Amino acid sequence: MDIKNYVLSIGEIAKKASRNMINIDTITKNEALIKMAESLIENKEYILNENKKDMENGEAKGFTKALLDRLLLTEDRLNAMAGGLKQVAALDDPIGEVVSMIKRPNNLRIGKMRVPLGVVGIIYEARPNVTVDAAGLCIKSGNVAILRGGKEAINSNMALVKVISKAATEAGLPEGCINLIEITDREAANEMMKLNGYIDVLIPRGGAGLIQAVVKNASVPVIETGVGNCHIYVDESADRERAIDIIINAKTQRPAVCNALETLLVHEKVANEFLPKLQDKLEELNVEIRGCEKTNNILKNIVLAKEEDWSTEYLDLILAIRVVNNMDEALEHIHVYGTKHSESILTNDYNNSQRFLQEVDAAAVYVNASTRFTDGEEFGFGAEIGISTQKLHARGPMGLKELTTFKYTIYGEGQIR
Amino acid sequence: MDIKNYVLSIGEIAKKASRNMINIDTITKNEALIKMAESLIENKEYILNENKKDMENGEAKGFTKALLDRLLLTEDRLNAMAGGLKQVAALDDPIGEVVSMIKRPNNLRIGKMRVPLGVVGIIYEARPNVTVDAAGLCIKSGNVAILRGGKEAINSNMALVKVISKAATEAGLPEGCINLIEITDREAANEMMKLNGYIDVLIPRGGAGLIQAVVKNASVPVIETGVGNCHIYVDESADRERAIDIIINAKTQRPAVCNALETLLVHEKVANEFLPKLQDKLEELNVEIRGCEKTNNILKNIVLAKEEDWSTEYLDLILAIRVVNNMDEALEHIHVYGTKHSESILTNDYNNSQRFLQEVDAAAVYVNASTRFTDGEEFGFGAEIGISTQKLHARGPMGLKELTTFKYTIYGEGQIR
Repeated sequence: MDIKNYVLSIGEIAKKASRNMINIDTITKNEALIKMAESLIENKEYILNENKKDMENGEAKGFTKALLDRLLLTEDRLNAMAGGLKQVAALDDPIGEVVSMIKRPNNLRIGKMRVPLGVVGIIYEARPNVTVDAAGLCIKSGNVAILRGGKEAINSNMALVKVISKAATEAGLPEGCINLIEITDREAANEMMKLNGYIDVLIPRGGAGLIQAVVKNASVPVIETGVGNCHIYVDESADRERAIDIIINAKTQRPAVCNALETLLVHEKVANEFLPKLQDKLEELNVEIRGCEKTNNILKNIVLAKEEDWSTEYLDLILAIRVVNNMDEALEHIHVYGTKHSESILTNDYNNSQRFLQEVDAAAVYVNASTRFTDGEEFGFGAEIGISTQKLHARGPMGLKELTTFKYTIYGEGQIR
Repeated sequence: MDIKNYVLSIGEIAKKASRNMINIDTITKNEALIKMAESLIENKEYILNENKKDMENGEAKGFTKALLDRLLLTEDRLNAMAGGLKQVAALDDPIGEVVSMIKRPNNLRIGKMRVPLGVVGIIYEARPNVTVDAAGLCIKSGNVAILRGGKEAINSNMALVKVISKAATEAGLPEGCINLIEITDREAANEMMKLNGYIDVLIPRGGAGLIQAVVKNASVPVIETGVGNCHIYVDESADRERAIDIIINAKTQRPAVCNALETLLVHEKVANEFLPKLQDKLEELNVEIRGCEKTNNILKNIVLAKEEDWSTEYLDLILAIRVVNNMDEALEHIHVYGTKHSESILTNDYNNSQRFLQEVDAAAVYVNASTRFTDGEEFGFGAEIGISTQKLHARGPMGLKELTTFKYTIYGEGQIR
């Protein structure tokens, strides 16, 4: 079978399964999730052995340490994946909720019912845990998953999908409710992006290159995720001590994630006093500073920022700092360089807080808090499949509800127009 | 300027205007809509004269009567467009509503605020009234419009946009809040489809060819609208008299629209008695019947349906009829041939009504009512920009709320992770 037909055949299986998923009740879905979790533990030797193949291939190809670490499965990591599935089982089922029902003047009763999207495609890179996390969220939300992981992890992914699919169907879910594209050629991913009529939404998870390739090439609907060039603006009236805690947290607690701080904007009236104190803390934590000219006039031993620094998502212990004349300049900087992910103002001024919340166009806009909270668990969604940085359908952390759509269910008694 | 740069320049103007739209209050938006309405009337001679150019071009090119009628503007039609704008002014402003605010265990208060999408692109065909309707809905929902109408209507569209833009900016809306792509080459539309970073959503309005071209070629997010191959299923237990009224209404009240009935499915136990009565009514109204073999055995003087009839959106006084053995067959037919727009069951059986509502995957699923109600006004939205047949973001009629997105506004007091 050629690649096009192979991908199409997976689409057909998935579409058929998604029709059957509609009639699966919550109890069955939860039992399946728990069985999937248990089977990961029961089959740990098999899975870890298959993962070893990927690790050996990766080592032979000279993968970086960081990439090898992302690929690696361990007993602990399998336990965490199983725990994640059990956690999803414990979440409320979003499906079937009628969020509103109105009665029209002609007595037509129009309900708005939450239903699954149908078939959700996910294209991701090396981490095999995405395979299990994404499958679990799709199942709980009544969707069928078509997964396409990176070729580096293909043996691990095939093993994981084999184990969890078997558990899912044994627990009563339809055959084909979890699908893996086993051909790792780029062509297979490209075919997946054009599977209109079979894939209802495609979610890319990974680096900017992957996401842009999907946005550019897909004809199926896409939810763009992830890139976060996040800012904190220290207003003239900010509480200085609190500001240092928040900045250090946003930059250093987990620098490699999309909601970490990348550029700090500081009002010029506080810069002279505030920046040296901040520098002491940042240096303790090995954070490199790349500052604008004004920052460079205040701080010693820093790197002078280039234009490209303002648009770089470092994902590392590097912080760009720019001194601004006023809040207008801060808003303009965020407008020009921000990626509409997470932006925060530190202020004690009422009007500035309101203006920032109103004018900054981003998925999450904060007053006096770390940007690190833009996360499904922190928002109370229980789990997330990614963070949307587009405006259509879902914005910010995507939990189970963001994997659903609506249909209007209309009760009549002979109404005509 | 080449076409690419021309379209990009419109994108830049629109993006700038959309940033200013954020701070426009409801009163100003409403005043602008009313001014726009008034200026359509004040400038009717100019507009009708420009429309005459399009009509003359169309006649010279031998356009069909139907197409010429769609192009034509009259005083009555201008009055209707003005009335539409005033109606939109009277609708509630969706922007700024905080639909929920939760308090997390760490005291972080996370609000979900309705905000404009930003820049909405609309690609449409010959009807110049779309220009005014779409601009009005975009403005009320705080969005900036980039309009791209058909080349047949370019003089009318340029006149309309000139008049309403002037009125809008005089009333205090930002320059560039209503934009028209004045180059009608296909290349300009193609560039618009790739205006990532400038257009937040693109809505095609028109025939299936246009919609498919946009879905296939766009890299900006698209909402697919319109194609409706709608079914009514007459269940064994249906009230026969009511059924005839509903079917006649759904087929004939306005056959050229997407929520009109195209294929009727009839349970075999009622077919013998019901179909001849229905045929009498349909013949009175000049509706051509294209029936399956079984229908053909029951009715005289009908056309035998071909396979392609089941997937045809006639948009005309033609009705396909298929006799089914049972509800399973009806559901299967709808699954295979439906376009997920509007589907209705006529029944007095509780279980069948519930099963139909549950299992049919469409934007609007009806029990005992005409499919013709799938419409923004009929749903109580006041107006609509189109009917979405995709699952992402909006499904069914799209009113003002469907032209919005959310941002999370988060109030902290120094929270860190």
